[in-house]
Amino acid sequence: MTHIQTIIEELTATVMGKAFVMRLMHMGLDAYVVGETVTANLREGDLLIVGSGSGETKTLIPIVEKAQQLGGTVAVVTINPTSTLALLADLVVKLPGVPKEQTALADETVQPMGSLFEQTMLLFYDALILQIMEDKQLDSQTMYGKHANLE
Amino acid sequence: MTHIQTIIEELTATVMGKAFVMRLMHMGLDAYVVGETVTANLREGDLLIVGSGSGETKTLIPIVEKAQQLGGTVAVVTINPTSTLALLADLVVKLPGVPKEQTALADETVQPMGSLFEQTMLLFYDALILQIMEDKQLDSQTMYGKHANLE
Amino acid sequence: MTHIQTIIEELTATVMGKAFVMRLMHMGLDAYVVGETVTANLREGDLLIVGSGSGETKTLIPIVEKAQQLGGTVAVVTINPTSTLALLADLVVKLPGVPKEQTALADETVQPMGSLFEQTMLLFYDALILQIMEDKQLDSQTMYGKHANLE
Amino acid sequence: MTHIQTIIEELTATVMGKAFVMRLMHMGLDAYVVGETVTANLREGDLLIVGSGSGETKTLIPIVEKAQQLGGTVAVVTINPTSTLALLADLVVKLPGVPKEQTALADETVQPMGSLFEQTMLLFYDALILQIMEDKQLDSQTMYGKHANLE
Repeated sequence: MTHIQTIIEELTATVMGKAFVMRLMHMGLDAYVVGETVTANLREGDLLIVGSGSGETKTLIPIVEKAQQLGGTVAVVTINPTSTLALLADLVVKLPGVPKEQTALADETVQPMGSLFEQTMLLFYDALILQIMEDKQLDSQTMYGKHANLE
Repeated sequence: MTHIQTIIEELTATVMGKAFVMRLMHMGLDAYVVGETVTANLREGDLLIVGSGSGETKTLIPIVEKAQQLGGTVAVVTINPTSTLALLADLVVKLPGVPKEQTALADETVQPMGSLFEQTMLLFYDALILQIMEDKQLDSQTMYGKHANLE
Repeated sequence: MTHIQTIIEELTATVMGKAFVMRLMHMGLDAYVVGETVTANLREGDLLIVGSGSGETKTLIPIVEKAQQLGGTVAVVTINPTSTLALLADLVVKLPGVPKEQTALADETVQPMGSLFEQTMLLFYDALILQIMEDKQLDSQTMYGKHANLE
Repeated sequence: MTHIQTIIEELTATVMGKAFVMRLMHMGLDAYVVGETVTANLREGDLLIVGSGSGETKTLIPIVEKAQQLGGTVAVVTINPTSTLALLADLVVKLPGVPKEQTALADETVQPMGSLFEQTMLLFYDALILQIMEDKQLDSQTMYGKHANLE
């Protein structure tokens, strides 16, 4: 079965990726967060999702290259579709926001650093979940049955 | 100095608490996530923030009791202000949403499990951050100077 | 298939549990760490491994009770076989060491807090891995094929 | 004050680094794990400790270079003192073991993958802790006072 692996550049963005991966798991998909204890290895045909506001994080570049060498498809969720990571990717999702490193780009915001990007990322992922639920005819009750029962 | 410690019931909610604690740290506050490697011990006068959709998670009850014995103040962010955790708390913040365990309470939603609660929790925390920034006359540029520069 | 879920009381001990679960996964076993993003729910017949130096951590008691109600088997790895958690468990493994809360119990050590217990726990888990490898006729090469290839 | 930041290549090795950083914190040192929520930014004069069996992990190279540009000192704990990371480092600690990628190097072992390296890494870090305790005249009782009291 195809694995979906999520890795996210910005530390707070990692957080949004984890919420997304947990819902994918609730739907019965084989999804992982890069760097957790039981993360499976990426195989040919797997999808790696990279979230990066600026699209320029240097530590993510060798990971994207490795995933492509292994035959994986790479999707980048970013503010900047002409960034290094976006240009490497097989698929790019452009979200509004201001990268945490800058103060006056694209969409103006009163919010600090990457907050706007994190919010739109969470809402984008949650909207994707609703779409997949509809496609798979799943409801909340069925998904809850897969939620960790020890916490 | 007063510590602020955040702990959150639901696994995905933990995620929102981490985004909040990171911004508090960016503002120069002494904040921690319970369970991480360098989390300080709670001292008299410290604030413990507990996020819990249902307000009924059993593992959080001994933590709230311990924090109060140590002289800490406990705030609970929850959907249910008459829940066990809310009744134990010194301060309660009620947010809209449906606990992940139920399917037909209070605010109707098409979203699965605790998704609505997670979204309102993130927006509530981000609104608090903007308020504290205004009180402390901080801007995004100053806060970015405290962001981890190795990631 | 039977799941193995590990949860460990002391923060540093959690660390040893994660190393163990990663090796179990390398051997093709379906193992998880409680509290991570993709942890499966515990089902009848599953094994929950609890590591606790003192055997008295209050937050672990409701987790052990819940696991037993769900039909799981609970093993406790501890210094103290007459502790609350050990008495609740279906299976107890006694390791040498001094609980981090005490300074003069059982085995004398110059090491601080729970360090001795952590070391014996790591070696005990690694010895178990060697035993299971022998039983399953596995070697390091085969197991490495399951190691995460993005890190 | 000088920060000490630890980052470790191999996933299971990360685990040993976390146990070390927690003890440093118990001794009152300002230590962090790269990638956790409240990790401070690295400043001139800070020490970055990198643990890497093979010394060749590609994602760690830009982190080491960034730390050195910021004026930090980099120490690498590795099996291979002529590896890329070791050659970049200001300070190298050579430990026995076999990198998880290889099966027949240096010290022979029946253990799978990086297990031997993880064990010697834990013991090396714990020995360092005992040395620092002696230098600072600290005992277990004083250190326990800094241990997280909510877990």
